[in-house]
Amino acid sequence: MKKQEVKALQQFIEKYVTIPEADWRLITKSFRKRQVKRSEVILESGKVCRHLYFLESGLLRYFIVKDGEEKNKFFTIAPYFFTSQYSFNNQTPAKETIQAIEDSIIWETTLEKNHQLLELSSWNQFAQKITQEVQFFTEEILEELQTETAENRYLKLLNSQPELLQRIPLKHLASYLGIAPQSLSRIRKKVMTRHRS
Amino acid sequence: MKKQEVKALQQFIEKYVTIPEADWRLITKSFRKRQVKRSEVILESGKVCRHLYFLESGLLRYFIVKDGEEKNKFFTIAPYFFTSQYSFNNQTPAKETIQAIEDSIIWETTLEKNHQLLELSSWNQFAQKITQEVQFFTEEILEELQTETAENRYLKLLNSQPELLQRIPLKHLASYLGIAPQSLSRIRKKVMTRHRS
Repeated sequence: MKKQEVKALQQFIEKYVTIPEADWRLITKSFRKRQVKRSEVILESGKVCRHLYFLESGLLRYFIVKDGEEKNKFFTIAPYFFTSQYSFNNQTPAKETIQAIEDSIIWETTLEKNHQLLELSSWNQFAQKITQEVQFFTEEILEELQTETAENRYLKLLNSQPELLQRIPLKHLASYLGIAPQSLSRIRKKVMTRHRS
Repeated sequence: MKKQEVKALQQFIEKYVTIPEADWRLITKSFRKRQVKRSEVILESGKVCRHLYFLESGLLRYFIVKDGEEKNKFFTIAPYFFTSQYSFNNQTPAKETIQAIEDSIIWETTLEKNHQLLELSSWNQFAQKITQEVQFFTEEILEELQTETAENRYLKLLNSQPELLQRIPLKHLASYLGIAPQSLSRIRKKVMTRHRS
């Protein structure tokens, strides 16, 4: 694996912890690069998640099918780590499906390799920080869902991650917000009119 | 501190990891026991959370005030660990308030002491497992909120934690489910009628 190639992975990890050169060699060896096409399913619900992934570029959605309808739980935007945590850690069937919304580059490692990596104190620290950060994000989404209207949640996204809203198809965003695509269109129009005036 | 006293804490931790005797002495020394009365506020929103807690007995709620209204995020039922994770880890003001719903017994340790404990591989492992479990719980609540009606969420709680429903006041449960107390009363009556027939 060329050094250049793993740069995105390295840069991401080093925002959280400093990795000694020796550890870095083991980490690099443990990951394998893969290209996924738009709409490609990375993990299907009902299957056991066998990998921990790093999303180098692209965008994903997590969804569950409920009464025949796809409901988006959340989105992962590069660069970030992802997996189906419960399924991966307990090797049980996943409840959600993970699908690429855009052509994406992902890096994957296995449970066994991750266990080896967790012996390194650098990787262990990194894993703890990421788990905690994911917990904060999840709690934030939960809190917003419990306290905010769909319109306010849309406005918050528009302020905090405007480029994300450009990249997520309307129907997926509407499903995430828990409203019909038509309602989201109405909110969008309302917001645009307000911005113009 | 008498050995008897820390038994609940020890039993809880040992469900997750095995703690060597030497480590156990440091853990025990790091926690301080406190009694809290029903309605007592353990952490107030806007204040920095200075402790990691173990709830030995009792019941708590996490809530945020939004437009003058208290919204319950979740409940913690003994025995379990709790804190305001983001506030505790980053020493920033907490968004939520943590309040006892029942007279409770809690054990608390500080950020500094927890950092010392995290040097122990036993405690470190325990902390990782708990953080991950909390993440699973949070994701589960989020998923239910995104995919289930309030009535179905009530029914799931009734099946999985019937004794919890006995202990949480109706208004707090309604706020957690995101509905008016009157709506929850209607759902309860409906369910009871169904069970009788």
